[in-house]
Amino acid sequence: MTTVVFFPGDGIGPEICAAARRVLETVQEQAELPLTVVEGLVGGAALDAHDDPLPPESLELARRADAVLLGAVGGPKWDGLPPAKRPEQGLLRLRKELELFANLRPAQIFPQLRAASPLRPELIEGVDILVVRELTGDIYFGEPRGAEVVQGKRRAWNTMVYDEDEIRRIAEVAFRAARDRRRRLCSVDKANVLETTRLWREVVTEVGRDYPDVELQHLYVDNAAMQLVRAPAQFDVILTGNMFGDILSDEASQLTGSIGMLASASLGQGRGMYEPIHGSAPDIAGQDRANPLATILSVAMMLRHSLDQAPLAERIEAAVLRVLDQGLRTADIAAVGEPVVGTQAMGEAVAAAL
Amino acid sequence: MTTVVFFPGDGIGPEICAAARRVLETVQEQAELPLTVVEGLVGGAALDAHDDPLPPESLELARRADAVLLGAVGGPKWDGLPPAKRPEQGLLRLRKELELFANLRPAQIFPQLRAASPLRPELIEGVDILVVRELTGDIYFGEPRGAEVVQGKRRAWNTMVYDEDEIRRIAEVAFRAARDRRRRLCSVDKANVLETTRLWREVVTEVGRDYPDVELQHLYVDNAAMQLVRAPAQFDVILTGNMFGDILSDEASQLTGSIGMLASASLGQGRGMYEPIHGSAPDIAGQDRANPLATILSVAMMLRHSLDQAPLAERIEAAVLRVLDQGLRTADIAAVGEPVVGTQAMGEAVAAAL
Ligand SMILES: CC(C)[C@H](C(=O)O)[C@@H](O)C(=O)O
Ligand SMILES: CC(C)[C@H](C(=O)O)[C@@H](O)C(=O)O
Repeated sequence: MTTVVFFPGDGIGPEICAAARRVLETVQEQAELPLTVVEGLVGGAALDAHDDPLPPESLELARRADAVLLGAVGGPKWDGLPPAKRPEQGLLRLRKELELFANLRPAQIFPQLRAASPLRPELIEGVDILVVRELTGDIYFGEPRGAEVVQGKRRAWNTMVYDEDEIRRIAEVAFRAARDRRRRLCSVDKANVLETTRLWREVVTEVGRDYPDVELQHLYVDNAAMQLVRAPAQFDVILTGNMFGDILSDEASQLTGSIGMLASASLGQGRGMYEPIHGSAPDIAGQDRANPLATILSVAMMLRHSLDQAPLAERIEAAVLRVLDQGLRTADIAAVGEPVVGTQAMGEAVAAAL
Repeated sequence: MTTVVFFPGDGIGPEICAAARRVLETVQEQAELPLTVVEGLVGGAALDAHDDPLPPESLELARRADAVLLGAVGGPKWDGLPPAKRPEQGLLRLRKELELFANLRPAQIFPQLRAASPLRPELIEGVDILVVRELTGDIYFGEPRGAEVVQGKRRAWNTMVYDEDEIRRIAEVAFRAARDRRRRLCSVDKANVLETTRLWREVVTEVGRDYPDVELQHLYVDNAAMQLVRAPAQFDVILTGNMFGDILSDEASQLTGSIGMLASASLGQGRGMYEPIHGSAPDIAGQDRANPLATILSVAMMLRHSLDQAPLAERIEAAVLRVLDQGLRTADIAAVGEPVVGTQAMGEAVAAAL
């Protein structure tokens, strides 16, 4: 029996997860897939219930599951809490505990939503980027880190650090992904300033020797941030560390204009975790206004990467395209004057299109 | 007698500096300004001549000058050199030695070049951003830093670090700048993950209490990278650290589509340094194809901020707008089909328009 754990999280998380669960259960019935869905608490929801953004029982649920689906975490309600007690800690600890070192974030244009991109139409033609972000190392987890007061003066620090094994395994993921795509890999670093990323460039170059069929390019992070805006169609796979990846993957997804549509996968050796790339949007939580499609597409990624059900993934993806073709739009992707549907109705429509 | 030192540097640096010098000398004659211009070597040019990207005599020139104008440094010729022997080190050491902690990077739209922006026209309407980047701290200079091999495994690290004094002085610069503009300040950090930037947010908030007339907002860096693309007109002054500032200021300038037009100032207690924000463009070096306008506008910033000659700065800025109105375009800012002028001709045209 396959088990999937849903962590709806905070803000719009519960609504979008409910819609995604509805879709998952529909394909499951259709395909007579033996699958159990359980739900657990992380983030602010877990803080409220257990004073811990990742309670032991939630971690245990995740460990025992074949895959994890996460809604979104965080919100102003928990902003004043001390660092260790913040919703984001639940997410960061999940990544670390499950060793989900490879974050895959596709940024692609949906033809139906082309007009939503902030870029000129001629620039987004053909944009289809996969950002491969290292997710369990770098300055996010580096030690030492902390804050102190010395002679009345406050000071705080963090450590950016990578070893060659960490770089090699994420580089392998990126080169393999590039091989299945357009065979171009752009590795992003700041090797002209930072020793850490000089090692990054060195190791990525070494790994590249095993992939002579993939064209490898290196860009400095400041230049990459520019090129993404200037000419995004030049990119196929972008490989980078945790910190730069946080920034560049969000920039890349914004270019599509369809951030409410983009799914992501966090993979390690075992089970994977899947989440929409957008946040918890507390301002519209509980109003049936959120776009559930990124979460629904995260379910598709989960079926493909963790549950070995690629045909079902394709079925869901096709259903999503169909509802877009039918003109269904949640508020975030509706053009001025277009009629808008709610979260639940959008989920139902995808289920019906299956 | 006022002294200005020009460091042309590498690639297109010498050409754009020659054009800028021509313009400076023209206003100098017109205004009978007692001013000496001297030239020195930094970057690759200094490496070639003295095996040092910032030779002692260059640093001495800079220290004795009232202002520094820098062209651009770096190029593939020096890419293979060890870290300490790279052209960029000359620039980084100049910033550090002269304590130029405040980097001001305006990203504005030139009405004549609106079509060059990669963004949809409705999004760039009214875009006028000043990025205030801390320039002598953060992970660029933090210790410890290095690389080692332990039991055959390579590892490398850098330290992100700030103390409250460093944050306070750059925050003061940003708040004062906001006061002279539209009174809105957006401070960018990653306070949900990094202790260093949590201190950043704390101190910026404290400084903000002295500027109740300036509206202060905090954004996470990933969100800022998105918002810049989604709705850049929402920003007035963006304040951030050295590393995030490197990325965001380049992203912001690219939005204007006129990166060949954008000047920057690096200020401390004493003399300031002025440079175009674009790089050394080795691919077009020596071909009379580079756009000298960013360097010419850097001269204007120098006259305003370091030489107390605001009226002359305005004269230069007006002359630049006039040549744009006349339809003069270097290749980087020419639309398809528009006739193109060279670096030297563009410099002459600005001088003539004075
Ligand atoms: C919520 C936050 C800790 C997280 C990160 O910085 O990794 C988020 O921005 C993301 O990209 O998934
Ligand atoms: C050349 C490099 C060291 C420099 C930096 O990273 O600061 C450049 O990108 C800049 O922004 O001036």
